[in-house]
Amino acid sequence: MTRRDPAYRLHGRVWIDGPEGTFLGFGRVVLLERIGEHGSISAAARSMNMSYRHAWDLVDSMNRQAKRPLIVSTTGGKGGGGARLTAEGKKAIAVFRAAWEDFKAFEARRSRDLDL
Amino acid sequence: MTRRDPAYRLHGRVWIDGPEGTFLGFGRVVLLERIGEHGSISAAARSMNMSYRHAWDLVDSMNRQAKRPLIVSTTGGKGGGGARLTAEGKKAIAVFRAAWEDFKAFEARRSRDLDL
Repeated sequence: MTRRDPAYRLHGRVWIDGPEGTFLGFGRVVLLERIGEHGSISAAARSMNMSYRHAWDLVDSMNRQAKRPLIVSTTGGKGGGGARLTAEGKKAIAVFRAAWEDFKAFEARRSRDLDL
Repeated sequence: MTRRDPAYRLHGRVWIDGPEGTFLGFGRVVLLERIGEHGSISAAARSMNMSYRHAWDLVDSMNRQAKRPLIVSTTGGKGGGGARLTAEGKKAIAVFRAAWEDFKAFEARRSRDLDL
């Protein structure tokens, strides 16, 4: 395959819709990963310069649309309530990341084929 | 291939970037097509509820980034100045439409493979 002209490239973005509209997108998936790392929604939100309220709304939207919750709250223990990424949450991350990688490959391949 | 759960679908949008940023997107290509049909930028803009100024800016952006102009003005004749879609313009439409159709196929195929 010949790259016709590197000045022209296909670009795009992808997300996964669920029963209520957007279910998983790039930012939502980074949020899930950060909650997994930090063990709390507020720490994850802070690490992304996102308000706690916005992060909470996104988690709520994902939990409502998933078959089983992606994030559950962990109460008690030192430091009080935190949040935990479930097995279902890990799977959702993997499913989105795989679709996103496939789209990146599509973008690159289709860019090479643009006869402009 | 099994469709895992029709409640979840991959969605997205694609466009083609050129030397200055966005070169061809869905709306730009519809504008090119309408100019081809109506023979004038103002009539094409009107048919899309778009301001003449915005349509003119989009045409200018596409013409600057293309190797040869996609739209040229036709002066004189009855009704005065109009605009014409060039062969390069027709080719740009076809190239974008083909990439867009490929993306639609990618969306459908990848939606069936979402194991959520």
